[in-house]
Amino acid sequence: MNITKIKLAYIGGGSRQWARVFMNDLALEAGLSGEIALYDIDAEAAERNREIGRRINQSPACLSRWNYTVSPTLSDALRGADAVVISILPGTFGEMASDVHEPEAYGIYQPVGDTVGPGGVLRAMRTVPQYETIAREIGLRCPNAWVLNLTNPMSVCTGALYDVFPRVKAFGCCHEVFHAKDFLAAVYREMTGEPGPGRAELAADVCGVNHFTWITRATYRAVDLISLLPGFTERFFQKGYCASNPNDPQSFRRGDVFQCGNKVKMDLFRRFGALGAAGDRHLAEFCDRGWYLDKPDPFGEWGFYRTPVPFRIVRQEERRCESEALARGLAPVKIAPSGEEAVQLICALAGRGARVSNVNLPNRGQMPDFPSGMVVETDCLFAEDTLQPLVAGALPPGAKALVMQNAINNDNLLKACRARDMGLAFETFMNQPLCGGLSVGDGERMFARMCRNTEGYLEGWKLD
Amino acid sequence: MNITKIKLAYIGGGSRQWARVFMNDLALEAGLSGEIALYDIDAEAAERNREIGRRINQSPACLSRWNYTVSPTLSDALRGADAVVISILPGTFGEMASDVHEPEAYGIYQPVGDTVGPGGVLRAMRTVPQYETIAREIGLRCPNAWVLNLTNPMSVCTGALYDVFPRVKAFGCCHEVFHAKDFLAAVYREMTGEPGPGRAELAADVCGVNHFTWITRATYRAVDLISLLPGFTERFFQKGYCASNPNDPQSFRRGDVFQCGNKVKMDLFRRFGALGAAGDRHLAEFCDRGWYLDKPDPFGEWGFYRTPVPFRIVRQEERRCESEALARGLAPVKIAPSGEEAVQLICALAGRGARVSNVNLPNRGQMPDFPSGMVVETDCLFAEDTLQPLVAGALPPGAKALVMQNAINNDNLLKACRARDMGLAFETFMNQPLCGGLSVGDGERMFARMCRNTEGYLEGWKLD
Amino acid sequence: MNITKIKLAYIGGGSRQWARVFMNDLALEAGLSGEIALYDIDAEAAERNREIGRRINQSPACLSRWNYTVSPTLSDALRGADAVVISILPGTFGEMASDVHEPEAYGIYQPVGDTVGPGGVLRAMRTVPQYETIAREIGLRCPNAWVLNLTNPMSVCTGALYDVFPRVKAFGCCHEVFHAKDFLAAVYREMTGEPGPGRAELAADVCGVNHFTWITRATYRAVDLISLLPGFTERFFQKGYCASNPNDPQSFRRGDVFQCGNKVKMDLFRRFGALGAAGDRHLAEFCDRGWYLDKPDPFGEWGFYRTPVPFRIVRQEERRCESEALARGLAPVKIAPSGEEAVQLICALAGRGARVSNVNLPNRGQMPDFPSGMVVETDCLFAEDTLQPLVAGALPPGAKALVMQNAINNDNLLKACRARDMGLAFETFMNQPLCGGLSVGDGERMFARMCRNTEGYLEGWKLD
Amino acid sequence: MNITKIKLAYIGGGSRQWARVFMNDLALEAGLSGEIALYDIDAEAAERNREIGRRINQSPACLSRWNYTVSPTLSDALRGADAVVISILPGTFGEMASDVHEPEAYGIYQPVGDTVGPGGVLRAMRTVPQYETIAREIGLRCPNAWVLNLTNPMSVCTGALYDVFPRVKAFGCCHEVFHAKDFLAAVYREMTGEPGPGRAELAADVCGVNHFTWITRATYRAVDLISLLPGFTERFFQKGYCASNPNDPQSFRRGDVFQCGNKVKMDLFRRFGALGAAGDRHLAEFCDRGWYLDKPDPFGEWGFYRTPVPFRIVRQEERRCESEALARGLAPVKIAPSGEEAVQLICALAGRGARVSNVNLPNRGQMPDFPSGMVVETDCLFAEDTLQPLVAGALPPGAKALVMQNAINNDNLLKACRARDMGLAFETFMNQPLCGGLSVGDGERMFARMCRNTEGYLEGWKLD
Repeated sequence: MNITKIKLAYIGGGSRQWARVFMNDLALEAGLSGEIALYDIDAEAAERNREIGRRINQSPACLSRWNYTVSPTLSDALRGADAVVISILPGTFGEMASDVHEPEAYGIYQPVGDTVGPGGVLRAMRTVPQYETIAREIGLRCPNAWVLNLTNPMSVCTGALYDVFPRVKAFGCCHEVFHAKDFLAAVYREMTGEPGPGRAELAADVCGVNHFTWITRATYRAVDLISLLPGFTERFFQKGYCASNPNDPQSFRRGDVFQCGNKVKMDLFRRFGALGAAGDRHLAEFCDRGWYLDKPDPFGEWGFYRTPVPFRIVRQEERRCESEALARGLAPVKIAPSGEEAVQLICALAGRGARVSNVNLPNRGQMPDFPSGMVVETDCLFAEDTLQPLVAGALPPGAKALVMQNAINNDNLLKACRARDMGLAFETFMNQPLCGGLSVGDGERMFARMCRNTEGYLEGWKLD
Repeated sequence: MNITKIKLAYIGGGSRQWARVFMNDLALEAGLSGEIALYDIDAEAAERNREIGRRINQSPACLSRWNYTVSPTLSDALRGADAVVISILPGTFGEMASDVHEPEAYGIYQPVGDTVGPGGVLRAMRTVPQYETIAREIGLRCPNAWVLNLTNPMSVCTGALYDVFPRVKAFGCCHEVFHAKDFLAAVYREMTGEPGPGRAELAADVCGVNHFTWITRATYRAVDLISLLPGFTERFFQKGYCASNPNDPQSFRRGDVFQCGNKVKMDLFRRFGALGAAGDRHLAEFCDRGWYLDKPDPFGEWGFYRTPVPFRIVRQEERRCESEALARGLAPVKIAPSGEEAVQLICALAGRGARVSNVNLPNRGQMPDFPSGMVVETDCLFAEDTLQPLVAGALPPGAKALVMQNAINNDNLLKACRARDMGLAFETFMNQPLCGGLSVGDGERMFARMCRNTEGYLEGWKLD
Repeated sequence: MNITKIKLAYIGGGSRQWARVFMNDLALEAGLSGEIALYDIDAEAAERNREIGRRINQSPACLSRWNYTVSPTLSDALRGADAVVISILPGTFGEMASDVHEPEAYGIYQPVGDTVGPGGVLRAMRTVPQYETIAREIGLRCPNAWVLNLTNPMSVCTGALYDVFPRVKAFGCCHEVFHAKDFLAAVYREMTGEPGPGRAELAADVCGVNHFTWITRATYRAVDLISLLPGFTERFFQKGYCASNPNDPQSFRRGDVFQCGNKVKMDLFRRFGALGAAGDRHLAEFCDRGWYLDKPDPFGEWGFYRTPVPFRIVRQEERRCESEALARGLAPVKIAPSGEEAVQLICALAGRGARVSNVNLPNRGQMPDFPSGMVVETDCLFAEDTLQPLVAGALPPGAKALVMQNAINNDNLLKACRARDMGLAFETFMNQPLCGGLSVGDGERMFARMCRNTEGYLEGWKLD
Repeated sequence: MNITKIKLAYIGGGSRQWARVFMNDLALEAGLSGEIALYDIDAEAAERNREIGRRINQSPACLSRWNYTVSPTLSDALRGADAVVISILPGTFGEMASDVHEPEAYGIYQPVGDTVGPGGVLRAMRTVPQYETIAREIGLRCPNAWVLNLTNPMSVCTGALYDVFPRVKAFGCCHEVFHAKDFLAAVYREMTGEPGPGRAELAADVCGVNHFTWITRATYRAVDLISLLPGFTERFFQKGYCASNPNDPQSFRRGDVFQCGNKVKMDLFRRFGALGAAGDRHLAEFCDRGWYLDKPDPFGEWGFYRTPVPFRIVRQEERRCESEALARGLAPVKIAPSGEEAVQLICALAGRGARVSNVNLPNRGQMPDFPSGMVVETDCLFAEDTLQPLVAGALPPGAKALVMQNAINNDNLLKACRARDMGLAFETFMNQPLCGGLSVGDGERMFARMCRNTEGYLEGWKLD
């Protein structure tokens, strides 16, 4: 791509804070410029972002000015794009409330509900039809564009892009692994008494499926960090340890629903000898229901929170207000580097220095023990117009069994969604680790209800 | 092999009725003859079988006379053998009682406990060391012999033979699939009103791992039997249906602990669209604990029994008495063809007609979606000195996820046993579907206890 | 299929003797009956066959009467068929003359020229477009029919059927392996002095690609036939040995262009330790040009003939006359069992007894060292409505390299033909072992000329 | 590794200029230091290098001083090493003269003769036994060391290290790909008129087997370099183009036997559409003998030289004299950065910045179309104590067939050497593309003669 005339299409994201972060970081990339075409089914949200973008351009700290536009259609946004960012909410929080909370009636308690478990299945069923449209439009309007998928369920969404348009240059981007690296830095600090490294200074081998990735090897200055974990676990398993605030490992007790005490991580380490590399609320959803989610509130025993959808609704409204204020010039625009990975990856693809980062791609050798074609998450090398996966080390055998089960489920779910095959969708639904113990009858009732609750968004599916 | 001078080594089996069946069927194979070398660590049991063999030879119905000998050592039995049958009990019923009943304290109820689940893991840990010895001796004494493994856990035991002596010509033999075929014959009878076929008349595609095999396709005279199952399930799921006695589908209610109402089979069919091809008590052990085994007695809801070890002890004593009586001439020897598969397979290998049968072998293409080297069960073609697997059809995607999880567990368990790796053994133990919901702490306590209970037979393992 | 109402569609074959053999053998299958729908672009030829069929029906020896019809269109012939036989000549012998003889100007001498080599490539380019039509029609008219492909190049044609209509139940049938088994029977006879077995009595492990298959293991009554080959080769390599006439191993010297002295087979055995299982004229085409085909006439050194196309033209005319005579009642119809394999396979699929036979199918595990999806030839089990490949033993490592090279070429050729990709077609052309030593310039000229010679049949290809 | 106390073991290399280059570049790596333990069976050569090392230490330009020692035994050199460099000559140039020139009697003309072809096979047979010893010693003395193999045949030697000691952290290093990148830079310069980039500025995707690697994709500032090749080839194919001297593309005509006009590269590009990434003399040896090596002197037609062994002998003596002069202080030591890759890779492994470089490793996913375990050459990421292969893009289908054939040959050759299996060695010998056209009889004679010529170094092989 011509780095002074880049066209970025930003699909969705209107209502998310992340768009602001993205614009903020881009504004600091001196030398890059071009157009950012915003498209959102909520046109107002896109327009708000355009206004924020314009105010960023006016900031004295801005090093890279972009032409922010709102596209009336998806096709317009994509036409001629060099890179595409997709970040959509399939349906509303109303649908998500059904995904997350309906299963509680059957004793299934999901902390997130957007990746796997009954909620993940329903969300995939709503999202894949939208991704089919996007993939087809990319094939028509910008077949050579780099496509960054930020939407969950990430494995299924990324897989859908490839299934519809096999030549797509898409990858799924997720930040969860970074927190696990921060945790390892804290482990180093606690166990050696030395200052902890920045996460980028660690050498680590990452692989798995999105939100159920594993760090199988990690070193910092010739110290094997994995070998520090048994001692660390012994010291901190009981009370938990949160790495967000270096001075207060107990900060997770203060009610921030995205924090955790990493007790699930430590428990999984005791089981498998590798480090689960995602937030505990995500990791728990891939495991047997009896391990971490047999009670409505896992905090007491496991130190993590379930994120209730009403909370998400309130938070979103707050953000909308903030955005509104920024857009109208009622709040000051501040620009500061946040290190947002997606911006770094676009820069690397634009030829501004190679970078290794963990992203989601169909397997074509990077996880040689796993079937070819399944979407997996591993480290990849990003360089000028190039994305090449690194061959990951092997998972510990026990973790491999668990990841494989979930990877096959994801793959079946994608097949079910692509074919709108209700039978296979239900089969995959019942096969979710969180649905263990559910009878076929209860499963049928619960699945039917979740479908009915969200049928307005189940495009192309036949409910009976 | 020279069919008039066959040497069969029979390792173990002294205390099992099956040896009698085997001798009975062999006696009816006119044209075959040779030596049957019996070896059992319970030398008395071997001698009893030799006496029974001699009486069979004297029977007027006997068509094929064999020279029955008792070998003082394993090496003697194996030396120069053309075929070897292995059927051992690793440890005593005392150990098996620990395998099966100890986990009950943690709410884990195993119907069999000799294949997977906590009991299966411990049994593998005891058996593999013995199989290492046997495999090495086969390599030295009869490297070209055909080796029939009848011991459980069958996948792990068969795998151990190949791991120690890669050129071994071994396969694992199991009768469970036959009952599933009988069940399908009954389905045909019930749903068409026509007389049911014999099991050998069905064409079926079988694959999976031992005791968790699946029939994915089955036809009889151009009728697709799988397509009859939804209707059959609707009619019989509630009350259950036992195929053992054609006139009494409710016969499983009469307390025979090896019978079942096939309700698990029907439930799994509703989940996955294929027929689990083993007894319900086996199938249930491979599934999430919440599906069929959340209560101590599964009979009420699921129509199958758990087999208590005290029952096995009583039954064995009865059989010992029967054998004793036969050996001493206090009971009449009756010979009649039972269709015993192991004898049929030996005949096929001896060149007396090709035969297709489902057996357990390391995967080398027969289940192409599964990793190479893992022991799997599929149909194979037996012909003169030849055993070739048939490439099986694909499992339904949901069943594949479940079988894969168990197959990886088996493979990890074999690795753990071969290396006497307590950590990996425990990891596999915790990964058993039946151990879902077990905390690491409880798991450690339970595992330690089960090890201590059986440590006399944990050859080469280091308990701490 | 209902064995009294079978519909067989016979596509092409009008001008080949083989149709008569097929009708002959079918007529002896008591219990089977139905319709045989003949379709040939040479309608007269189809009508001749119908008339012959009618006369067969009138023969007193006929045990199974069929209703022979001539279909006006391909669709009509296929509609509702239970089995389809495809045996077409892509183009005329004029095109084949170009395939076989044009390369002679560049020193490339092909004995057959219909499978690999420059002739095989051009033939594939003509045939695949026709197979695309047939595959689509099968998908529409008889998607569940069993499809027997007899047309060369067999690998590419069979692959095309699967590529266009993935659910097709097709396989490629070829008799060449039988001759290699006859040769092994002769080896047994010569080396033991005992009477030779019939080919069906041998146990053999067969694998490779069509016309370049290998027997890697063969036994008869516990005698390892492969181990007899070194001695046999020593005795007979110099003079050659033909197995067609047991009393005259030198009969291949009498000018029958389909006979050979098996010197190529023996030479390949010395190179690789396995038996090439096709006629020498076929085997030679898969090897380096310098091995067997560096001179216009290979007979002197290698004891096989090249089949000139003018010879084929004369022979075909003779057969047309014979058929004409039979059709008009000017020659007597004689029916006698010939053991024609295609008829036996249809009988097996119709449920009249299982049968193992070597056929061509996309690899899905039967040759585990070879990529999935490539068409390979191995033994398969045929039973009622069932076709299952047997997992073959490994090729000797050197032969594997050679077969792999040819298998990849075949696969590339199929891709080139499907996409009408002239560049890839030329690449594959140049990669043929027989094109070794050809410069790119000469290759381009020769390829262009062969395309122009046959352009009337290169449907959908763009020549410039 | 502790970067101030690195122990490097340097095995062999006594007589090669490369050791001097290596010491030179190391001397410029400020911050690194430690011991370099030299071991050579020619102890004098090792001592010469030690003296040169000492003089380098005294140079004012030296930034990194190393303790150079001569080890009396291989074990001493390896004990506790952090990194090992292996660069041995198996046998003397007398053996190499047999490898290269003996086959000329049969019309086989090898330009190099140390990788594939008859010479490569014999060289492997001599080298593997030595590598077995080295691998075992590494396992005992420095199992965690990084091992850089520089010896040819590189695929087989690297494979032997892994086969003997599977945990070895070895890779094969070769410079040939760099010249292909220089060539691409020249292509850019010629076709765009812009100044050519340095080779490190190109983005390229590399894969294949050593000396037969391919660049399948290459870009520089968003220009697709591969797309420039057709035009370049048209302009320069006739006269040839050498990239060593930017002002004189015809410089290869001046008799330097290591230069070439890249006509083979251009010819292969016309065949396959990808760029062969090694010197033409190497590439030619992997192809059909008729393509580039049907005449004793390929220069006239193909613009590359064969390197006669007498020339190597003269050159080596010159180098010995130079070394002698340097060691004795009769010539000035000059230090200047040469960019030697091996030093850069050691620095990367020591934690001084990540680097991507093409090296040889057993395949574990980096070439997903190739069998696992075969040694292949692809780009890999080097970082602190980490070596991870990048998953390479696919080879063009035609090139894949050719590379596969050679890769299987290499693999068979390694197996033959490990088992000292003369039959398999001969099979592989005959399967070399350069041995096309060789009769079995001639092959046997030639192979026997080459074995006898070199039998003093065929350790453990049984010649008859």
